[in-house]
Amino acid sequence: MRSIDLNCDCGESYGAYVMGDDAAMLEIVTSANVACGFHGGDPEVMARTFGLAKKKGVAVGAHPGFPDLWGFGRRRLPFSAAEIERLVAYQIGAAQALAAYAGHKITHVKPHGALSNIAAEEREIAEAIARATRIVDPQLVFLAIAGTELERAGATADLAVAREIFADRGYSDDGQLLPRGQDGAVLHDPQVIAKRVLDMVEESAVIATSGKRLPTQIDSICVHGDTPGAVAIAAMVRKELAAAGVSLRAFVKPAG
Amino acid sequence: MRSIDLNCDCGESYGAYVMGDDAAMLEIVTSANVACGFHGGDPEVMARTFGLAKKKGVAVGAHPGFPDLWGFGRRRLPFSAAEIERLVAYQIGAAQALAAYAGHKITHVKPHGALSNIAAEEREIAEAIARATRIVDPQLVFLAIAGTELERAGATADLAVAREIFADRGYSDDGQLLPRGQDGAVLHDPQVIAKRVLDMVEESAVIATSGKRLPTQIDSICVHGDTPGAVAIAAMVRKELAAAGVSLRAFVKPAG
Amino acid sequence: MRSIDLNCDCGESYGAYVMGDDAAMLEIVTSANVACGFHGGDPEVMARTFGLAKKKGVAVGAHPGFPDLWGFGRRRLPFSAAEIERLVAYQIGAAQALAAYAGHKITHVKPHGALSNIAAEEREIAEAIARATRIVDPQLVFLAIAGTELERAGATADLAVAREIFADRGYSDDGQLLPRGQDGAVLHDPQVIAKRVLDMVEESAVIATSGKRLPTQIDSICVHGDTPGAVAIAAMVRKELAAAGVSLRAFVKPAG
Amino acid sequence: MRSIDLNCDCGESYGAYVMGDDAAMLEIVTSANVACGFHGGDPEVMARTFGLAKKKGVAVGAHPGFPDLWGFGRRRLPFSAAEIERLVAYQIGAAQALAAYAGHKITHVKPHGALSNIAAEEREIAEAIARATRIVDPQLVFLAIAGTELERAGATADLAVAREIFADRGYSDDGQLLPRGQDGAVLHDPQVIAKRVLDMVEESAVIATSGKRLPTQIDSICVHGDTPGAVAIAAMVRKELAAAGVSLRAFVKPAG
Repeated sequence: MRSIDLNCDCGESYGAYVMGDDAAMLEIVTSANVACGFHGGDPEVMARTFGLAKKKGVAVGAHPGFPDLWGFGRRRLPFSAAEIERLVAYQIGAAQALAAYAGHKITHVKPHGALSNIAAEEREIAEAIARATRIVDPQLVFLAIAGTELERAGATADLAVAREIFADRGYSDDGQLLPRGQDGAVLHDPQVIAKRVLDMVEESAVIATSGKRLPTQIDSICVHGDTPGAVAIAAMVRKELAAAGVSLRAFVKPAG
Repeated sequence: MRSIDLNCDCGESYGAYVMGDDAAMLEIVTSANVACGFHGGDPEVMARTFGLAKKKGVAVGAHPGFPDLWGFGRRRLPFSAAEIERLVAYQIGAAQALAAYAGHKITHVKPHGALSNIAAEEREIAEAIARATRIVDPQLVFLAIAGTELERAGATADLAVAREIFADRGYSDDGQLLPRGQDGAVLHDPQVIAKRVLDMVEESAVIATSGKRLPTQIDSICVHGDTPGAVAIAAMVRKELAAAGVSLRAFVKPAG
Repeated sequence: MRSIDLNCDCGESYGAYVMGDDAAMLEIVTSANVACGFHGGDPEVMARTFGLAKKKGVAVGAHPGFPDLWGFGRRRLPFSAAEIERLVAYQIGAAQALAAYAGHKITHVKPHGALSNIAAEEREIAEAIARATRIVDPQLVFLAIAGTELERAGATADLAVAREIFADRGYSDDGQLLPRGQDGAVLHDPQVIAKRVLDMVEESAVIATSGKRLPTQIDSICVHGDTPGAVAIAAMVRKELAAAGVSLRAFVKPAG
Repeated sequence: MRSIDLNCDCGESYGAYVMGDDAAMLEIVTSANVACGFHGGDPEVMARTFGLAKKKGVAVGAHPGFPDLWGFGRRRLPFSAAEIERLVAYQIGAAQALAAYAGHKITHVKPHGALSNIAAEEREIAEAIARATRIVDPQLVFLAIAGTELERAGATADLAVAREIFADRGYSDDGQLLPRGQDGAVLHDPQVIAKRVLDMVEESAVIATSGKRLPTQIDSICVHGDTPGAVAIAAMVRKELAAAGVSLRAFVKPAG
């Protein structure tokens, strides 16, 4: 039986500021990318999120971002590759400690927001993130957007790589995400989204907005947790996959 | 032959802001307590400091503090013991990752500033810090001020405890540090400081300002790195101990 | 005809993090206390909030808090009175500039959270806040909890003082707020709240949980904007007052 | 008699972190650009710096920068012109309040670091800064690098503009600063620097490294406060100008 992972970002609240509905999402996904206190999250939120993920049997990863709480990690900050390598190492280490604190264990790394966007395009940045991951723990899986520099950098660093597609984003014919703002860049209808995800999984291909198929290995589906309707979309994707006999399972066995 | 450790705080610079003379101090001490980015330090400074310590053969520890860069960790912030436990875990994890990044390895933990002062007095806070240390890595040595709640908490948590005395601070008859501002609270003359340190080490006792001896095991001597004359004081302490045949050696063998 | 002011905290969002429903509250209240970027708010949020208040004809005040975004200004930070004086001056100045930027004008000051709680009890802190207010602009109205050190400090500093009561908080027989967590400390039923507010306004008295009346001048009613049901409560208070012929009007005429 | 202003950045320390020697520089310069808490400075440092400047009769200006303490405002952050406008307004307002607090008054604005560098080149950013300045107080003088978009933007916004040259930086034949790292980009010899400054002032021209003269009005000379030898350089510039009969005077009369 075919199985696949469903991942989402979690633990992005900060103090009294709430982002997304982590409790609901952790009922649905099989892997959670947990913010590390730079673009979102704080030690309290991290401990709570790792604890909840542990309880729900959800695998967890570090989700490092730029040190930019104000911009929620979405600003493309001009850090060098070397600086990014250290920023990422710092955050993975912190996440490891707080996961241990909650009796859980980090099993993957996935960069956030602008850091991910830059790394998808720039080899040097992608390699810095992969290298930081490897130095902190070579057993960590590198969760990368299929077909990007991130995927290549994970392989170069001899990390296990899991390839993800986005459930709710439109793709161009060359496999790039359509820029936000462009027609079809973001999908909203849970039914449409779930159906498209299932097609991509069954065909092992990214399906561009034009209908074009771009064959790729797909290990994980990314659903967003901080958009309106996020929970409904994630639930529908899960349901559609299950109905088609695709089991949901983390690409790495949750620790413990 | 008698041997003892000499420790100081390091890596407390932040971006363009320089604190202390790390390069000079790392030529003298045998253990460095490296700031973790909360009260001072940043990922760049941490990587640089761990790298330098590695090169000089100096053992390194995490030096967690309150999240208070503005106050340099010297304000007594009203965090609960549980919050402090997670704050400390976060910082130790980050330090581990950046030490690994520099090819070094964290072998001890010592809290900073107001966090240390509170923990010296309050059992609940001391135990939170010791517990965080143990959860992240039970092999870590707990570097604690001799005779305080920190020392007791390290033992309670089944951590190896190293007991330190302060080279340049006056002690009361009950072994407490004289409050800053009080006469004799801070010593300045390198010769006087070095002589007193040697006496304490040879007698295995804290020597109060009154001359009273308080027997205690002494594993390490703390010299400050951010005060005027710090380097001269540390050098003199080292010289005096060496002249008396006390070898300087980290209480834990530096990694690698 | 009797008139009274209705005030609430606004502009406490931060970047992508949303706090409260400012647009809805600004349809209801007559004065808005706008966060200044320390415990919440940022220059973008401030400009937006001042602009919206201007459009709705709502008077605006600076709402300074401790520099503690993580704790949302609810932690009692150990700053001295002198430090608080400068913290508050800084925030009022920033608020003035951004109000001007939006074509509006700050006409009052009201401290936030833990800063307000401390100042309600400690004369020295209350006077520091009043002094900072006066130095920046002696025309500013000092919005103070009736019967506290804040009210007295405003008068001492020769500021115009507006006295406020809380719509949804229980009072003890000596006019203090019941501590959160205690039975009756926080009221939730809009009808009950609105009726009690009207009684207090008509009797010019704080009404304790016991029913005891504590006569006081009431210039403003504080409704909270960041609690569940906040908008419904504020709307009901407004409706009840209007029905009884009490007109809602800022204690200071909105600028422009 | 010819007179000119000598300006330097001040108040860039942060908590326990010291930057530059403000007390020494305020003995020499006639205008101080005071950091506003974003790239450096804090309310305590600001109050202290304004107080010292007041005592020494030094005119003061707001010195807004990017919100980047870690990068000391030297990173080119990707903020939009509209965001920068509000960031700058915020900082000017805060500076006004703390100057008032110290009995002083802001009389000019000069952007810092990367914000200044970007604004020198990009009209939209320069105009945003000038507009923010004008909205907060149209009497403020706009201190701008001679020949840049900043100078033009100040004029466009109907602000009084003071044109500055850099004492210690090399210029290309088209009046641009040589990029740091390039030969001759930074001058170090106080004698050479002072002589060149005097030539520029007497000839009313920027003198490029090649010797080429670029005629321009010069109202102020910028000396740096945070480089090695800063105080010696500033003192020598002042001495050389005085010896040549050029009096040192702020381009705006210090308040009070």
